[in-house]
Amino acid sequence: MLPSTPFSSETLFMRVTSFAFLASLLALLPFSSAVSASGSIKQPEDVLGEDAQALNAFQQQALDTTFATLDAEEERLKKRGETASCTRQNLEIRLDYGSISKKDRKAYSDAVLCLQSKTANTPSSHAPGAKTRYDDFVATHIDQTPFIHYSGTFLGWHRYFTWVYEQALRTECDYQGPIPYWDWPKYANSPQDSPIFNGDEYSMSGNGEYIPHAGTVLSPLPGAPGDPIVLAPGLGGGCVKTGPFKDMQVNLGPVALPNATLGPSGGLGYNPRCLKRDFGPGVAVKFTNYSAVLHIMKQQDIASFQLELQGAPGSGSVGPHGGGHYTINGDPGGDLVWTLWQALDPSNRQNAISGTNTLLNQPPSENTTLDTQINLGHAGGTNISMRDIMSTTKCPFCYVYL
Amino acid sequence: MLPSTPFSSETLFMRVTSFAFLASLLALLPFSSAVSASGSIKQPEDVLGEDAQALNAFQQQALDTTFATLDAEEERLKKRGETASCTRQNLEIRLDYGSISKKDRKAYSDAVLCLQSKTANTPSSHAPGAKTRYDDFVATHIDQTPFIHYSGTFLGWHRYFTWVYEQALRTECDYQGPIPYWDWPKYANSPQDSPIFNGDEYSMSGNGEYIPHAGTVLSPLPGAPGDPIVLAPGLGGGCVKTGPFKDMQVNLGPVALPNATLGPSGGLGYNPRCLKRDFGPGVAVKFTNYSAVLHIMKQQDIASFQLELQGAPGSGSVGPHGGGHYTINGDPGGDLVWTLWQALDPSNRQNAISGTNTLLNQPPSENTTLDTQINLGHAGGTNISMRDIMSTTKCPFCYVYL
Repeated sequence: MLPSTPFSSETLFMRVTSFAFLASLLALLPFSSAVSASGSIKQPEDVLGEDAQALNAFQQQALDTTFATLDAEEERLKKRGETASCTRQNLEIRLDYGSISKKDRKAYSDAVLCLQSKTANTPSSHAPGAKTRYDDFVATHIDQTPFIHYSGTFLGWHRYFTWVYEQALRTECDYQGPIPYWDWPKYANSPQDSPIFNGDEYSMSGNGEYIPHAGTVLSPLPGAPGDPIVLAPGLGGGCVKTGPFKDMQVNLGPVALPNATLGPSGGLGYNPRCLKRDFGPGVAVKFTNYSAVLHIMKQQDIASFQLELQGAPGSGSVGPHGGGHYTINGDPGGDLVWTLWQALDPSNRQNAISGTNTLLNQPPSENTTLDTQINLGHAGGTNISMRDIMSTTKCPFCYVYL
Repeated sequence: MLPSTPFSSETLFMRVTSFAFLASLLALLPFSSAVSASGSIKQPEDVLGEDAQALNAFQQQALDTTFATLDAEEERLKKRGETASCTRQNLEIRLDYGSISKKDRKAYSDAVLCLQSKTANTPSSHAPGAKTRYDDFVATHIDQTPFIHYSGTFLGWHRYFTWVYEQALRTECDYQGPIPYWDWPKYANSPQDSPIFNGDEYSMSGNGEYIPHAGTVLSPLPGAPGDPIVLAPGLGGGCVKTGPFKDMQVNLGPVALPNATLGPSGGLGYNPRCLKRDFGPGVAVKFTNYSAVLHIMKQQDIASFQLELQGAPGSGSVGPHGGGHYTINGDPGGDLVWTLWQALDPSNRQNAISGTNTLLNQPPSENTTLDTQINLGHAGGTNISMRDIMSTTKCPFCYVYL
């Protein structure tokens, strides 16, 4: 068993410190996506394996259902003399980072840099380390970490969080397009060569500098069974020195996760350092490949779906969500797979919630319901009920993933 | 006829420079409002005149209709196995500034001061004078002035604008409550003595220092018929020296309105000066009394309603909206009267729009429709259709006025 090294702590803190950067991008899209004008998906099926094809079929089915639902709602309202808010016409399409133009990729990273240049809304009395508007999102995540993972709000919170981040990029930093995501299993064999992380000027910067190091050891979550999980070391480990974020300063964290050293003021203090990354194929190949994502999509109830996505405690797996975390050390969200999964059986899944308002129900808390309110603190947005974030095509949202 | 004096130009620019401050507050509520727990309104009717009582009856009717509609929608969704987003339970109640506690008044003015202390989102390349988050709202109003008055978007734009301002106060400045408004006709005889403008520490500051001056002469709007309108001088005219905003620095404006001198960079340049005010009973008594507001509420179609609210060009009246402008030199919005007016006949008024996308259709533009998109630039919010801001009890809104 590998010991817990200082480096593995660093790896863990990056999970949070760089999360907003990544939450906005990574939605575990398990398929490549050349979309025709009619909305159908053309895949080079001969080069895709069986699991990739199965995922592709799921996506097509989800998309068909979503469009049919939108059309039916438009028709229903029309009969009442009303008009629908979200229709095929104004639906926003979130695309894979590799599927948007280089110009649009640059516009996106420019907007993130802009957010990192603006003054924080978080009062320094609350989070002395929150210096920028970008940090507001990091601080909110640190604040709420014990309530938004392995909890009933996990999926809804990350959906709203990503949307509010997108709105901030638009309103505060002139970004025009929908937020892009990372087509994850497509690049699982070599994330460091993907358009998003290859380190060129159109990427979201590359890997950290290579520093020989052991893998990361994850202790079991508090109160959960099982052995530590050992993750293979990546191809980086040091400071990021390429692409738009080569000079990025990480201000907040680390937070108190297993094996991690808590930063000043409970992770909310000022703790400036470079952005480190350590991605490589090891973790991605194991946890974020087509089969792993297909496994998630095949779950029949929300409890299993969200548990497998995060990795069932004691199972030895960190799930695709965890795989995303440890591949690129950011928060991969999970909104895309949730959105697809919901659309595969809307009557049973649209409003399905499972879990309580605390991480693995520690400390014990109330069940999350449609009435449970979430908020994003100083990051932005409003107090909003889980009820109002269950569909990506109902106000305030109007988007799908392609 | 009084000549246009330098002072009257000053009066006019204040219309815009202090607008956000006021748009957030003034909704022309034509009734006092002691609200019982059941939501019914108890008025000391014996002290109210006939017009005030008639307005009071309108408000009660509007409120009853709104609650009935909410209940019916909740019931309808329940039958479909769905749940309503906006119900009696989570409805926000916007109250008259004079009806909230002194503590809450202070919390409100503190939040506005906070917004004035934060760095602007508007790029200086666009508006060099926009220094603070508060200025973002002013700059957006200056930018869009030719499209949001005497246009089809007038009412919807101001509704959304006020709401986004309220959200900014909450998210960025820790304000907790709903945004208060000014019960206007209640204080028409003496606005300078009202809780909102009496200049004490719980007010939104008082009048400007008294400087003897002539009234303001308003030239007809471009292309509109009629004689200039002469407004009585107020009891101030100089810098505001009392209350929370006694040190406020106005950065933007003036804008190019009739009789006003355009500030640098088309009103978007940096032009620091004190906050001036010139309110007094003259204008308020004439244009914002109970009878004037009742007259608006009695209009049967949206075209007449919004025209009378702003003052029909050539009629010699500036309407209650204009009366609000020139009483306190800020933008009084009009959302409250619109909300009530809609609720008096929802089937005909809920989605009624009249007008084009430019001021008095100059230059000629397309008709405003439910599909017309508005946005608030760097102030905040998202691109949103008129369709989605027609009801105050549908997402993204969930509020009423009491």
